[in-house]
Amino acid sequence: MRETRRPDTVFWVDPAAVRDDHLTLDPEESHHLLHVHRAVAGTPFVAVDGAGSTYECLLASSERGVAVGSVKHRATDLGELPVPITLLVGLPDSGPSETVVSLAVPLGVSAIDFVACSRSGRPPLGDPRLARLTRLAVSALKQSRRSRLPVIRSTPSLEAGVGLLAPGARFVADPEGQPGLRPAEGAMAGSISLAVGPPGGFTPEEVADLKNAGFEPISLGYSRLATETAAITLLAVARNYLK
Amino acid sequence: MRETRRPDTVFWVDPAAVRDDHLTLDPEESHHLLHVHRAVAGTPFVAVDGAGSTYECLLASSERGVAVGSVKHRATDLGELPVPITLLVGLPDSGPSETVVSLAVPLGVSAIDFVACSRSGRPPLGDPRLARLTRLAVSALKQSRRSRLPVIRSTPSLEAGVGLLAPGARFVADPEGQPGLRPAEGAMAGSISLAVGPPGGFTPEEVADLKNAGFEPISLGYSRLATETAAITLLAVARNYLK
Repeated sequence: MRETRRPDTVFWVDPAAVRDDHLTLDPEESHHLLHVHRAVAGTPFVAVDGAGSTYECLLASSERGVAVGSVKHRATDLGELPVPITLLVGLPDSGPSETVVSLAVPLGVSAIDFVACSRSGRPPLGDPRLARLTRLAVSALKQSRRSRLPVIRSTPSLEAGVGLLAPGARFVADPEGQPGLRPAEGAMAGSISLAVGPPGGFTPEEVADLKNAGFEPISLGYSRLATETAAITLLAVARNYLK
Repeated sequence: MRETRRPDTVFWVDPAAVRDDHLTLDPEESHHLLHVHRAVAGTPFVAVDGAGSTYECLLASSERGVAVGSVKHRATDLGELPVPITLLVGLPDSGPSETVVSLAVPLGVSAIDFVACSRSGRPPLGDPRLARLTRLAVSALKQSRRSRLPVIRSTPSLEAGVGLLAPGARFVADPEGQPGLRPAEGAMAGSISLAVGPPGGFTPEEVADLKNAGFEPISLGYSRLATETAAITLLAVARNYLK
């Protein structure tokens, strides 16, 4: 049976494939819409471009297996946090890196930098690995109904990572820090940066550098947290204070 | 080479295997201490019993591959939250269930109930599955340096799950709720219960039942969160308010 109900799935569309009131899905997304969801002319579907736009469409044509949608409504910044949050994560193994992407993207992070810290014991991630993590981010974006694809990058040192940050509130997970995140009124209005160490933690020198760069040390308390758990916890706690 | 430095690992000991000032590791943990970490008589090690006690020991003997430790110091409730937090999680697939255990145990949860909700579409977890999740919990407990093993259970309905809860502050993740968790001063002093729906969410009837049972609806905001992400987020946010 062919379907004319709207699939409960969001489709990815390249921003360059949106022209006036029509958009064209790539072969993989077209296949998914036409063959997995069995869409026919007139079937409604939703597409997101990762650059802030979410489109409500009707399937206009499916010639040669290419799905073209007629745009009925366009919304901007659906599912996005009111302020950008960047996460600096001391580069861990690949499993924990994937956990960070899978959980932090739905929570609204704007950028994740897997920083090759002293105790990471490895070089920054190369392009194939970043491409894989970005594919995970696209999948998480679609599932969570966000509209802006976070940047996934990997810098070779904490200094390089900090150099890319916008001004604003900064917090680092540090067992020696103040217990719990208790931001001052109004502190969470700008661009927010969060940092968690690699397995084994930041070195004392790295912690000192972060403090000099304006990072407030926050203890996530009580027990020892793995890098990925600390990253998600700090992000969850910070976004709870956004208005 | 044999090692006399303390392994950076915590060993599991059954509470019944602790007698006065000695404790006996089971065969698996003994093997780990003696053969992986190459401990010899006099090597210090740390053991946790999951019932609140953490023991600093010296290896006293290793006859027939059984490690017996002489207890030098015992601490109580190391790594534990000041108040118990119970997490009701609408039963998801096995992957997300394992993610919840792996991340919520280090964050200090006291009990996790995987509740077979209306939209879970499956019966509560059986003993083999609970045993597997409990093994994951033991591993997470050791890595995070906690001392009380959380209860992992699975109830057949929300009513059954709620019936097992202690009195205290209660919050449910609900897209229709107040944005963000902003507990009243002093509200987080008792036993805390948190609830998140299964994939597809709680039914309106389940949400109404939770509200009647004193659960305050809290929106985790902005985007659509998978069950496991919502569970970890609500737990992270709640524990940030503990004193």
